[in-house]
Amino acid sequence: MNRRKRFVIKGCQILTMVQGDKPFVGDLLIEDGYITRIAASIDEQADHVIDGIGKVAMPGLINAHNHAGMSLLRGFSDDLKLMDWLDKKMLPAEARMTKEDIYWGTMLSAAEMIASGTTAFADMYVQMDAVAQAVVDSGMRAALTRGLVFLEDDGGQRMKEALDLIESWTGAGDGRITTMLGPHAPYTCPPQPLKEVIDLARSRKIPIHIHLAETVEEVEKIRERYQKTPTEYLHELGLFAGNHVLLAHGVHLTHADIKLLCGMSGGVSHNPVSNLKLACGVAPIREMIEQGITVGIGTDGAGSATTLDMFAEIKAAAWMQKLDAGDPTVLPAEQALRMATIESAKLLRIDSEIGTLEVGKRADLILIDLNKPHLQPVHDLYSLIAYSATGADVDTTIVNGQILMQGRQLLSLSWEETRLEAAKRAKRLVAGL
Amino acid sequence: MNRRKRFVIKGCQILTMVQGDKPFVGDLLIEDGYITRIAASIDEQADHVIDGIGKVAMPGLINAHNHAGMSLLRGFSDDLKLMDWLDKKMLPAEARMTKEDIYWGTMLSAAEMIASGTTAFADMYVQMDAVAQAVVDSGMRAALTRGLVFLEDDGGQRMKEALDLIESWTGAGDGRITTMLGPHAPYTCPPQPLKEVIDLARSRKIPIHIHLAETVEEVEKIRERYQKTPTEYLHELGLFAGNHVLLAHGVHLTHADIKLLCGMSGGVSHNPVSNLKLACGVAPIREMIEQGITVGIGTDGAGSATTLDMFAEIKAAAWMQKLDAGDPTVLPAEQALRMATIESAKLLRIDSEIGTLEVGKRADLILIDLNKPHLQPVHDLYSLIAYSATGADVDTTIVNGQILMQGRQLLSLSWEETRLEAAKRAKRLVAGL
Repeated sequence: MNRRKRFVIKGCQILTMVQGDKPFVGDLLIEDGYITRIAASIDEQADHVIDGIGKVAMPGLINAHNHAGMSLLRGFSDDLKLMDWLDKKMLPAEARMTKEDIYWGTMLSAAEMIASGTTAFADMYVQMDAVAQAVVDSGMRAALTRGLVFLEDDGGQRMKEALDLIESWTGAGDGRITTMLGPHAPYTCPPQPLKEVIDLARSRKIPIHIHLAETVEEVEKIRERYQKTPTEYLHELGLFAGNHVLLAHGVHLTHADIKLLCGMSGGVSHNPVSNLKLACGVAPIREMIEQGITVGIGTDGAGSATTLDMFAEIKAAAWMQKLDAGDPTVLPAEQALRMATIESAKLLRIDSEIGTLEVGKRADLILIDLNKPHLQPVHDLYSLIAYSATGADVDTTIVNGQILMQGRQLLSLSWEETRLEAAKRAKRLVAGL
Repeated sequence: MNRRKRFVIKGCQILTMVQGDKPFVGDLLIEDGYITRIAASIDEQADHVIDGIGKVAMPGLINAHNHAGMSLLRGFSDDLKLMDWLDKKMLPAEARMTKEDIYWGTMLSAAEMIASGTTAFADMYVQMDAVAQAVVDSGMRAALTRGLVFLEDDGGQRMKEALDLIESWTGAGDGRITTMLGPHAPYTCPPQPLKEVIDLARSRKIPIHIHLAETVEEVEKIRERYQKTPTEYLHELGLFAGNHVLLAHGVHLTHADIKLLCGMSGGVSHNPVSNLKLACGVAPIREMIEQGITVGIGTDGAGSATTLDMFAEIKAAAWMQKLDAGDPTVLPAEQALRMATIESAKLLRIDSEIGTLEVGKRADLILIDLNKPHLQPVHDLYSLIAYSATGADVDTTIVNGQILMQGRQLLSLSWEETRLEAAKRAKRLVAGL
């Protein structure tokens, strides 16, 4: 990892992603992990100069919903029904996963995220010590959550692990790790233990990360059990009163559900590729945004989305809403890019630190190389990046002022070792399934 | 351009895309532009060996509907209503295009297509001498069509250009260029001149390339003028009786329309990204395929789709159908890849020459490098390539046995010259719009 204390990026097109800012050509000064100056020209002395000519500097993308360890199962069981996918493939393979498997799965995901311009992610999985260690080692930023399921037992051991994660890892990696509490979903968390988690989170000011209304089946199940929508169920347990909540999916919400979310702290991670590939449906994100609810973008795990490339999610989000509205003007390029940066940062409750390029914020940013056939000519940078760029166009990825990739070379991890470990472990996990 | 007469690609994973074939590791022998052997191991003498270890060999992707010259307007006018996009932006900018502009726009598109694994495309545009010259120069394969509009006049000059194109360019570039007749669309071609084109095409056995039912507005317009659907209009003029027809879009087709297409020679180019981005709708391609109609995949022009990356189209096609059906099992990965290769080849009427990897076919193929975080581990090659790969993962592109890109270096054209010419011309085209 490149631990340069002070460096300048010169001559790039800058997209601050601050609402109202126009793209401009300029320089950025990075000192001790922070952006300390943005100007048309910076001539101050620095350890190092990065040539930004022909490149676009923008905030690193923020993946608001991931299960990073799952990348070991990428492409293992696509094109199946959700329940076949889960019961016959994912769960049996996941049951074999050791702590070391999850470490290397997360390293593989970190390699993919760094290589495709994602600098931070929210994760819910198991064996979170391994995930946290991979985050520290890879140099990424993450908001980590131990998934809590209370179906067959009281989940006491899981709750202990969730609290241990928060105790042991919050602030680790020079502050790159934050933590949340992760009651898995309405259908896996009965009222009593869920209410305890909600109350604990509120009293200790810990954010909550939870799946909500991903499928029609979930809505039906909750309706049958409680005669409520999943959102009403969470609302009545007090989730939206005084908690910061990251809701994953939010596909099947009624108008009344959306009203219940108005004014909440946090918001919804829209995961369009997963929703498309698993045929879950179109999340009503235009209505949520109109109602003032924060909507960010996530990938979901590579087990469903196949890839963690946030540029694919940005495209899918815009396309789906245009199609659904029958109107090509909805969810324009700049808005889709903002969802994948500052809006996702709000969901992770770290928008005061990252999500835009502003003086005083952490230096989490990427450089996109425009010297490619599909990124020429340049008429509109937002359109070009949202609708034509892919993760492979990211040249440089910087987190907390550390250069994790430059010239597409991964600097904070050994790709060769990660690839071999991932391949070996993946083979064992799926043998015979 | 690398004019090696005889070379072997060794040790790659081979996806022949022949229905029923499983992926296997092997070698390919290329001689004088043809695939002459495919085997587990080929030890024959050759001028040159390409190392295929860790790479996937598959047929080059075939873009069944493009307007290549339009890439000069990439991202110029996204997020607008279709008619605003067309009338206020595209048409005024296109009106300024010279023959040289269209040559360089096509070269830019060729660079993008070669760099993203597309080896052949069907094109409808104007100034087709310039397009054909760019196809010859870039080394690509193409089925070219002069777009015919007969609205304000009888289109005599356009018809002359269309026939000149066929006369002058069919078979050029060592047989890489084929030609078609291109009546633009039902709403731009009144019955009399359209019938003449259809009859001429039939008598001279020239395939036809035509837009069909892209938007609701088109369907309404034709209904108003002729009290028919656009498909009925074409059917009654005899288009589907004895002609080979490449229909672009086919979004708004009724069940009865689809019945009229059964048994046709040719079929439909599905252009999912353009349909999504312009909010046109979901083409009923599952029903067409069930009815035995050939469905390939195209991008439409970069003016609407922004990028010509066929890997994005493959994903979008599968995602849209899964969402529309509410069923993640429809349009699985392998089928989507087949649509972008052999099915598209059928639309261009060159499936006896390209579209699968088979002995005796032209050597139009690509090598995809799997040594990337998002392409590891390897559980299922079809899933990985359809759902995770992008054009940037293509390492080598070969057309007619000529290596147009290797190690991501474009060999048949000067990227620097193309980029500078495209940028300069693009700026002039949009000035003041």
